[in-house]
Amino acid sequence: MADSRRIEPRTLKGFRDYLPSAMLAREHVVDTARSVYRSFGFVPIDTPALEYAEILLGKGGSETDKQLFRFEDHGGRDVGLRFDLTIPLARFVAQHSSELGMPFKRYHVGTVWRGEKPQRGRYREFLQCDFDTIGTMSALADAETALVIHEVLARLGFERFTLRLNHRGLLNGLLEGVGLAESAGAVLRALDKLSKVGPDVVSAELMSEAGASASQAEAILETSRLRGPVAEILPRVEAGLSVPGAAGAAALADIDAYLAAAGVPTSRVVLDLSIARGLDYYTGTVFETFLDDLPAIGSVCSGGRYDDLASVYTKETLPGVGASLGVDRLLAAMEELGLVSQRGTAADVFLPLFVAERAGDYLALASQLRGAGLSVELYPDPRKLGVQLRYADRRGHRFAIVIGDNEWSAGTCQVKDLTGGEDRVLPRVELAVALLRTLTRS
Amino acid sequence: MADSRRIEPRTLKGFRDYLPSAMLAREHVVDTARSVYRSFGFVPIDTPALEYAEILLGKGGSETDKQLFRFEDHGGRDVGLRFDLTIPLARFVAQHSSELGMPFKRYHVGTVWRGEKPQRGRYREFLQCDFDTIGTMSALADAETALVIHEVLARLGFERFTLRLNHRGLLNGLLEGVGLAESAGAVLRALDKLSKVGPDVVSAELMSEAGASASQAEAILETSRLRGPVAEILPRVEAGLSVPGAAGAAALADIDAYLAAAGVPTSRVVLDLSIARGLDYYTGTVFETFLDDLPAIGSVCSGGRYDDLASVYTKETLPGVGASLGVDRLLAAMEELGLVSQRGTAADVFLPLFVAERAGDYLALASQLRGAGLSVELYPDPRKLGVQLRYADRRGHRFAIVIGDNEWSAGTCQVKDLTGGEDRVLPRVELAVALLRTLTRS
Repeated sequence: MADSRRIEPRTLKGFRDYLPSAMLAREHVVDTARSVYRSFGFVPIDTPALEYAEILLGKGGSETDKQLFRFEDHGGRDVGLRFDLTIPLARFVAQHSSELGMPFKRYHVGTVWRGEKPQRGRYREFLQCDFDTIGTMSALADAETALVIHEVLARLGFERFTLRLNHRGLLNGLLEGVGLAESAGAVLRALDKLSKVGPDVVSAELMSEAGASASQAEAILETSRLRGPVAEILPRVEAGLSVPGAAGAAALADIDAYLAAAGVPTSRVVLDLSIARGLDYYTGTVFETFLDDLPAIGSVCSGGRYDDLASVYTKETLPGVGASLGVDRLLAAMEELGLVSQRGTAADVFLPLFVAERAGDYLALASQLRGAGLSVELYPDPRKLGVQLRYADRRGHRFAIVIGDNEWSAGTCQVKDLTGGEDRVLPRVELAVALLRTLTRS
Repeated sequence: MADSRRIEPRTLKGFRDYLPSAMLAREHVVDTARSVYRSFGFVPIDTPALEYAEILLGKGGSETDKQLFRFEDHGGRDVGLRFDLTIPLARFVAQHSSELGMPFKRYHVGTVWRGEKPQRGRYREFLQCDFDTIGTMSALADAETALVIHEVLARLGFERFTLRLNHRGLLNGLLEGVGLAESAGAVLRALDKLSKVGPDVVSAELMSEAGASASQAEAILETSRLRGPVAEILPRVEAGLSVPGAAGAAALADIDAYLAAAGVPTSRVVLDLSIARGLDYYTGTVFETFLDDLPAIGSVCSGGRYDDLASVYTKETLPGVGASLGVDRLLAAMEELGLVSQRGTAADVFLPLFVAERAGDYLALASQLRGAGLSVELYPDPRKLGVQLRYADRRGHRFAIVIGDNEWSAGTCQVKDLTGGEDRVLPRVELAVALLRTLTRS
């Protein structure tokens, strides 16, 4: 084809390709999350990427609406690409509730699209990895949400991290105590900016937007500084709480006790009265998860409890609790902390095609090793051994098994440890067991 | 919310939700495929769902172009949703070839969209699960492609299936022998309809569209009836083949020998000279895979070899070979053959919340069982035991572990086998081991 007819290979602004090493890391995170979700009884669902725009815009007026990838389809329908997995969940549960039965515990791993301004580390297409328990008000479900987060992070190799809890009811109760119950929305919007803009700006906003007096603003900021073990903080704020405020405090106390019973180290759970996220959404417990060594990366898993998931689509009242794993943040953190392999292959064993006429024998050996549970990549062309081994070095295989004419005759093989260990010569009948033993040890 | 403001929960025509049992089955198929792909050294990639329309329309003029979901994005760009994973692969390899190195073995599991007329079992959104080896002409790579297909089907539980091979070069050579080399395209298009319209219609089309005489049409149909073991069929057609035709025959003979060496039963591999699919695309080997018990379902995994993947995007010549798993067809077949569980949960163990004040103890037990490798769903509300057990029956858990006040005191538990086996009473310290033993045996 003439160069003039060639099309420049490129991706859209704000979109990206995943190369193999990045994709292997992503699959590791998602597989780990799915495995934990399943172990708690969550089940997978999937919903279409495209939905009627009216479904996606259901609540109306939010920032995400402007970011919707929206168009007219072949049938003249007004459609859009989903921008989160929560609205599709609400639509799904409303549509299928009789088949599902309650409680309903689902996970959903899916791509979402938002036409926002691309920034470093933020894309217009990204993967979400959510789990929710619908149809129960039980604080046990809140505790399980935190347990799932804890287990996913632990299995990914994180050791120093903290679950921060708060409760919308408790916060409302505290604002009542200060005399600002009426402007709770404005107060929480101001507080939500605390870590970004600092207390002075927040204090000014509390006065200008929430109608707080200087002493009220000071009292709120004072409260928002409270952070520590649930059992330490609660007694300092519980006095004089209204009924809903006290219910929030009681829920937090229950959750804290449940987490301890399930074996979560108490140092990893704190009550943080400054968390004011998800204002228009969460009505009960709110969760954030911070990595102690990388606080600036933000919360890597956030969620909370809501009163009613799907009121836009059904008259059934569906309370629930859930959270969303920040896959991109977790991957960035794992790279920074060295918790993820940079390998470009999932196959531990590389088998060079050294003697061309023996192709069938190499294939037979590769099959035999795979039958024993090993992952084996066979090079397809009889190129120079050096070329083949450089390929393996670049990919990151763990071992290369070199078998030339002599080894074929002698029934042996050379096992090269590509991570720098010692090379060995082994009888081929012992190869599978020897490799499995080395891999299990490492 | 008033009913009048409520939005009807519905999906777009041609789109569908996956409920948990369907999604568990799909995850099982995809996880199995990924695991096999990885065991052969294939690595995952991902590419954006949205691409510049000019990239997707690169080749131009095909049926898929009309089916493209295409629109103008926020920045006025002409964009579309990918309709396969092959064009994105071509674009990806052209764009990143220096980072990738050759050969490059990738798999890609991703959603694609086609605005075609919805039919029974055909949707406008579906999952593709492709694997390809780029950058080698070796017949070993063709054989590995067939091996991967074979291994995926075997691991999914299929026993009676057949890989059908053909070769575009051999077909061309045979047409040369009949004197119809010039109209190969028209001949193959006619042959492609054979199983649908029968030999008489194909014969008529060969004469009207490919300019064949009655005897030429008869000779072609005669050849297309040849189907059987490669080593049986090849000798009957090899005499007098042109050089490219003989090269095709030699490649098929190599592949057949490689598959035998790798342990594929010879009964599962046939040469089928009627396969004429992918005319505008495949240039060498062509693969189809049929289930012996469900031939009408069509090929469940198809693929082939191509000369040049990405000539639209790069001057680099990139030959390759690959195949695409028909996930929806496989799922339909597995359901029909009883190879897939209809369960609505991945958790084997159900733990009713029987004594409300013991919530923490149930949580602790669930954590302990998970720590032993079991999947455990704890019911979040202390409802009547019957209600909780009906929930478990519906979901399809394997066991329910009932612990009331007496059992808590005695350190025991009742193990109910929800599949109909006998109930047992066990000391709780023995529970994990007993459950694991039963599950391993089944």
